[in-house]
Amino acid sequence: MGYEEFTIEGRNAVIEAYRSGRTIDKLYLLDGCQDGSVMTIKREAKKKGTPVKFVTKERLDQISETGKHQGVIAFAAAYTYAEVEDILEAAREKGEAPFLFLLDNIEDPHNLGAIIRTANLAGAHGIIIPKNRAVGLTATVAKTSAGAINYTPVARVTNLARTIEELKKEGIWFVCADMDGTRMYDLDLKGAIGVVIGSEGEGVGRLTKEKCDMTAAIPMKGNIDSLNASVAAGILAYEIVRQRLNG
Amino acid sequence: MGYEEFTIEGRNAVIEAYRSGRTIDKLYLLDGCQDGSVMTIKREAKKKGTPVKFVTKERLDQISETGKHQGVIAFAAAYTYAEVEDILEAAREKGEAPFLFLLDNIEDPHNLGAIIRTANLAGAHGIIIPKNRAVGLTATVAKTSAGAINYTPVARVTNLARTIEELKKEGIWFVCADMDGTRMYDLDLKGAIGVVIGSEGEGVGRLTKEKCDMTAAIPMKGNIDSLNASVAAGILAYEIVRQRLNG
Repeated sequence: MGYEEFTIEGRNAVIEAYRSGRTIDKLYLLDGCQDGSVMTIKREAKKKGTPVKFVTKERLDQISETGKHQGVIAFAAAYTYAEVEDILEAAREKGEAPFLFLLDNIEDPHNLGAIIRTANLAGAHGIIIPKNRAVGLTATVAKTSAGAINYTPVARVTNLARTIEELKKEGIWFVCADMDGTRMYDLDLKGAIGVVIGSEGEGVGRLTKEKCDMTAAIPMKGNIDSLNASVAAGILAYEIVRQRLNG
Repeated sequence: MGYEEFTIEGRNAVIEAYRSGRTIDKLYLLDGCQDGSVMTIKREAKKKGTPVKFVTKERLDQISETGKHQGVIAFAAAYTYAEVEDILEAAREKGEAPFLFLLDNIEDPHNLGAIIRTANLAGAHGIIIPKNRAVGLTATVAKTSAGAINYTPVARVTNLARTIEELKKEGIWFVCADMDGTRMYDLDLKGAIGVVIGSEGEGVGRLTKEKCDMTAAIPMKGNIDSLNASVAAGILAYEIVRQRLNG
């Protein structure tokens, strides 16, 4: 477990964490448990959109650091999430056209960390991830980001497609990474841009893809299917950097 | 342990593995053990350039799957290494200018796997890694490569700087990735090329760097030091792809 220090165990501790406004990344509950306080926790989880997993007592015992989980273990965010507006503000402050990443259900914390790292170095202003299913800002993500998590804001939204709709009104164009698209070198990626990267197995979801203005393909010559998600994000990020540098 | 199936345990098994020509990635020996058969194993390890680590009995017991390690555990390559000549031959067969990667002590198996994956998709003909210190073709590497390990040859050499010298005679130019270099967009990377990627912490070693013809810098705007090694390799690989496509 790389999460020890961000585990919150026991009913009161988890209820308290929700009340203090702390972001919970995911919640493990003892399967079949219907007690009053567990119902309270379930309500809070639903309200905040926390993914809940029902597990056996053995699994909880295995994860538990304290040995006193009372059927409830929460995994808390190691870092604080930003708002989408903070990301736009960061671009404004620098006098630059917004450059953001939207990650459609990246589940591997190493990939999320590496993308935050790349976004920072490519000069992107922030990253937007969906609330459900995707990995949150855990200790592993923080470590893989090589410190970039302290500088590059990450915002969580309920619905990625809706966020794209809203950001389009701000004049941002959206490009989604997909093999079926136009060769990235042939697209104009110089303006205000949001890059949508899909999950490893499934790529960008249909609903999200439909909202995008362009689809960019990284040319591929090899025998296998796809690049690692964080490598693909890096390649696309630097095509944008190149185009911006060339004015 | 992600290596279980590639562990060879016990004195005879390890001696036999060496005799059959199987590549051993690393060897753990019980510290202080001087028996005849252990001396034989040490000689084989020296001859083949296997990195040897002397460890406690407790450590061996911990790693051992069989419980019968007799003070010797070898980690065998999950996949076979190619020769440098095989890589050049692959380029010749395709009628393409050679495009290879040289990895200067990449120690993280996830990075090695991701680079093999990228090399395959970018149309590189192979990868060269040094024999010592660096990670070998373990099960984790194979998994992270997403199958690319079955198509893209990986060769191991004793001395990377010497291999560069020899390959220069074949008309290959070498570019090393380093922050102090020329902006990659301003270099001519279209011809026969070897890309040298350094390890995460230390970058490309001095001796290796001195042998390179060019140093390519990926422009960086952010607050942190460096990109993940496999992301940097991907960005550089695709700058080469872009230049080659533009003729």
